[in-house]
Amino acid sequence: MDLWYTEKHSDNVGITMKTTRTLFSGKSEYQQLDIVETLEFGRMMLLDGLVMVTERDEFIYHEMIVHPALFTHPNPKKVLVIGGGDGGTIREIMKHPEVELAVLCEIDGLVIEKSIEFLPSMAADIDGNNPRVKLHVDDGLAYIREQQNEFDIILVDSTDPIGPAVGLFEKDFYTLVFTALKDDGIMIAQSESPFYHAVIQKIMYRNLRAVFPIVEMYQAFIPTYPSGFWSFAFASKTCHPCNDFDHDRSAKRNFHTRYYNQDLHLGAFMLPTFARDNIAE
Amino acid sequence: MDLWYTEKHSDNVGITMKTTRTLFSGKSEYQQLDIVETLEFGRMMLLDGLVMVTERDEFIYHEMIVHPALFTHPNPKKVLVIGGGDGGTIREIMKHPEVELAVLCEIDGLVIEKSIEFLPSMAADIDGNNPRVKLHVDDGLAYIREQQNEFDIILVDSTDPIGPAVGLFEKDFYTLVFTALKDDGIMIAQSESPFYHAVIQKIMYRNLRAVFPIVEMYQAFIPTYPSGFWSFAFASKTCHPCNDFDHDRSAKRNFHTRYYNQDLHLGAFMLPTFARDNIAE
Repeated sequence: MDLWYTEKHSDNVGITMKTTRTLFSGKSEYQQLDIVETLEFGRMMLLDGLVMVTERDEFIYHEMIVHPALFTHPNPKKVLVIGGGDGGTIREIMKHPEVELAVLCEIDGLVIEKSIEFLPSMAADIDGNNPRVKLHVDDGLAYIREQQNEFDIILVDSTDPIGPAVGLFEKDFYTLVFTALKDDGIMIAQSESPFYHAVIQKIMYRNLRAVFPIVEMYQAFIPTYPSGFWSFAFASKTCHPCNDFDHDRSAKRNFHTRYYNQDLHLGAFMLPTFARDNIAE
Repeated sequence: MDLWYTEKHSDNVGITMKTTRTLFSGKSEYQQLDIVETLEFGRMMLLDGLVMVTERDEFIYHEMIVHPALFTHPNPKKVLVIGGGDGGTIREIMKHPEVELAVLCEIDGLVIEKSIEFLPSMAADIDGNNPRVKLHVDDGLAYIREQQNEFDIILVDSTDPIGPAVGLFEKDFYTLVFTALKDDGIMIAQSESPFYHAVIQKIMYRNLRAVFPIVEMYQAFIPTYPSGFWSFAFASKTCHPCNDFDHDRSAKRNFHTRYYNQDLHLGAFMLPTFARDNIAE
């Protein structure tokens, strides 16, 4: 039997992938969670029917949500990840020896549990055994409301602005992030596809600019996400992602990256005209 | 009735698009040609069942196969396009006032004819009425064999290296292109997806380097192509795509681009590590 999983990226277009088996399918308090095996992309996690990560291309998303900020901040010691229950973002953060503590605040304990079980290449650092990692199974909004001047970097590794993540795209949330960051703090948030989500981007970047003095968009190619063209918001109090990029530290890093590199760090901020237009002030 | 067109990008993954009607379906001497109407991407041309262009995202491919070379060459007067029967590449070339003559050498007259009929937003300059455009319905290999020291720029706007385009990825062809170019000539060729076509890229760039002293890869995101992550080869005798980029001429151009811009011209050459590795010497 040929089983194909199709994710619609709009009413009229989608990606379709051949699957071999379902490893887990269940409903948490917050969302539907499925982990399936695909032939092209390895294991794949879906939340409410949308692709979150696949084993084959997750390195792009995770390298790109982490390293641009970590190689821009002058001394990143304490990092918060909101969402990111698969553990891939924490794994990349752990490659930076400067980081003393990474806190993962994921609303859905089932995502963490099943990632540890089925996606070990991502989740190895969130199984409770890494002393530099602290887990909070909690609503990101509730958690961050209690934090002040606490983090060097906050990474918002959220789902799309529907379901449990909707509050993570609003101005009130960005104000809480601003308060939770130290004086030279940086926030990164996934910011959807410039090709399909122009309206969401417009609102999101307007909200970010109302709170942060420095707001830039950067891009990455992620084959399993809608259109393959994805973006991240870089928002900060003082650091500019290109002018303050620590090229030397990045060049001398003692770990390999398959997508990120020093040239690409700068190139990622050189956007197509239509993407720039989406977020023009 | 819901009709969905699915193009497989490998045996195990594909893109699927809702269609409303078929405008043309027929077989030429060389290949199967279909033009269908899709809801998400407008009209779409398929050759042998593979997406060549869609109205919604063709601007990316056509801007990116043309403008990086045209704004790098110091004085592009005579340009040859091999393939490109939809006319989109010629349309972008015509935006450069320096160009006195563009020659289109397309093997398949049916592609030209049906593009004029059904894709007028691309094909307006190849209908025989533009005195700066000359059409040759001919095999690119046969045509270029007769040319020596003739063109400033040659753009290879071909299909994949299967079917009629297979010869356009071989070293003998690149040698003919080299001979057909003037002393400061530039060749651009579409060079497949770094994500899916690592083996083709490796061979293609090795062949190019055996002929041209300067060979660089650049990238563009094209949603309807496999993985959404596409690439072009920049091969030239003397001009470097970044060092010799005419930033001023590009900044002062009197036409609008929706993908290409001066920053992106440079950023397009800043590749992910895995893409660089595909073509490492």
